[in-house]
Amino acid sequence: MRECHPLEELIRYEFQDQKYLDIALTHSSYANERKGHLSNNERQEFLGDSVLSIVVSDYLFHQFNVPEGELTKLRAALVCEKSLSSFADQIHLGQFLKLGKGEELTGGRTRPSILADAFEALIAAIYLDGGIDRARQFVLPFVQHTLEEGEDHLEFRDYKTMLQEIIQKNPEEKLTYVLVEESGPAHDKKFVVEVRLNSNVIGVGVGRNKKAAEQMSAKEALKLMGECK
Amino acid sequence: MRECHPLEELIRYEFQDQKYLDIALTHSSYANERKGHLSNNERQEFLGDSVLSIVVSDYLFHQFNVPEGELTKLRAALVCEKSLSSFADQIHLGQFLKLGKGEELTGGRTRPSILADAFEALIAAIYLDGGIDRARQFVLPFVQHTLEEGEDHLEFRDYKTMLQEIIQKNPEEKLTYVLVEESGPAHDKKFVVEVRLNSNVIGVGVGRNKKAAEQMSAKEALKLMGECK
Repeated sequence: MRECHPLEELIRYEFQDQKYLDIALTHSSYANERKGHLSNNERQEFLGDSVLSIVVSDYLFHQFNVPEGELTKLRAALVCEKSLSSFADQIHLGQFLKLGKGEELTGGRTRPSILADAFEALIAAIYLDGGIDRARQFVLPFVQHTLEEGEDHLEFRDYKTMLQEIIQKNPEEKLTYVLVEESGPAHDKKFVVEVRLNSNVIGVGVGRNKKAAEQMSAKEALKLMGECK
Repeated sequence: MRECHPLEELIRYEFQDQKYLDIALTHSSYANERKGHLSNNERQEFLGDSVLSIVVSDYLFHQFNVPEGELTKLRAALVCEKSLSSFADQIHLGQFLKLGKGEELTGGRTRPSILADAFEALIAAIYLDGGIDRARQFVLPFVQHTLEEGEDHLEFRDYKTMLQEIIQKNPEEKLTYVLVEESGPAHDKKFVVEVRLNSNVIGVGVGRNKKAAEQMSAKEALKLMGECK
């Protein structure tokens, strides 16, 4: 039995061949300090970039019945450095990186560009080890969560914005979000929000916070309107 | 039995659902002229772009043991508009496009941007209809052919260039390509080329023309030297 890497538990993926994981975690600054031909994560980053792109594109293509320009904006927002370094933070990727001394001393472990690149290299590691479907299983929850939260830093048109833009074509129509339920203990809250068009409920959403519940209600409404599968 | 589209014979792929093919061939100018919600090929182009990227990236990653920067340059050259419109020409894609009257009159049928976009939409059509492996089977021959020919318009480092750059690190070494066989009828010529390092044969290549055979011999030599799998 080989030893399990702590990151494997965090990402809920056990590698058949841990070498892909090792390479994903090896920054060029670390490899450069060593003699010989230690592989760094740059080639896997190259591959992971494309794996991420097809997974995200396929998901958006099937989920959102919006024009190409909107899909392109959404994809760009989801795969940008800011998003990827945030995904990396969620699995504490920084603490597992092998960095050279210089990078370590200058805060490389928390640098967004290094984290984003390593996250792409990790996607490639799973792709090389387990195939496209395992890579998809790994990536999609981050993407879905981001879309549902409609996170502030993302400049894409989230569900609420999309719904707003459709509704405002008719200036007399008015959208409101109403919190209809808030329950559960502090660490496991549940929020239920209705989105209303004038006085009609056109969607209901559930989430761990109000914002997420609003996004889900807007998603429901878009589904009703045929704009979102 | 449904009618076979002539393009299906040319690309040797029979669609289970021809709607994807129809959409791939429908330019926005054509759809805009029609009433109702006729789909144009722009959403499939969005998806096809990523399918192309993962197929090419995966191929390059496994074929070429070169640094990330070289892989990125190769990929960029292979998926650029010029390459894609050339691929489209090879299957006479232009003649099957549905274009609006304006585009038709202003030469849209031979415009590289329109052809490149439609080619990406066609890749997505095969992906949606038959999955990633069928899309790969469709795309890779174009890519391989381009790499083997080392076509002049491509600014990437083909096999011969890569070999040259490795060899010239030792200025006393000299590479030569020697045509050792030319046979077959005019329409089906076979060329055999040896690449020699000083007087030693380090690779032998076969091709339909001298240039292709030279590329193949350089590829063999790179393989021998561990630079190319």
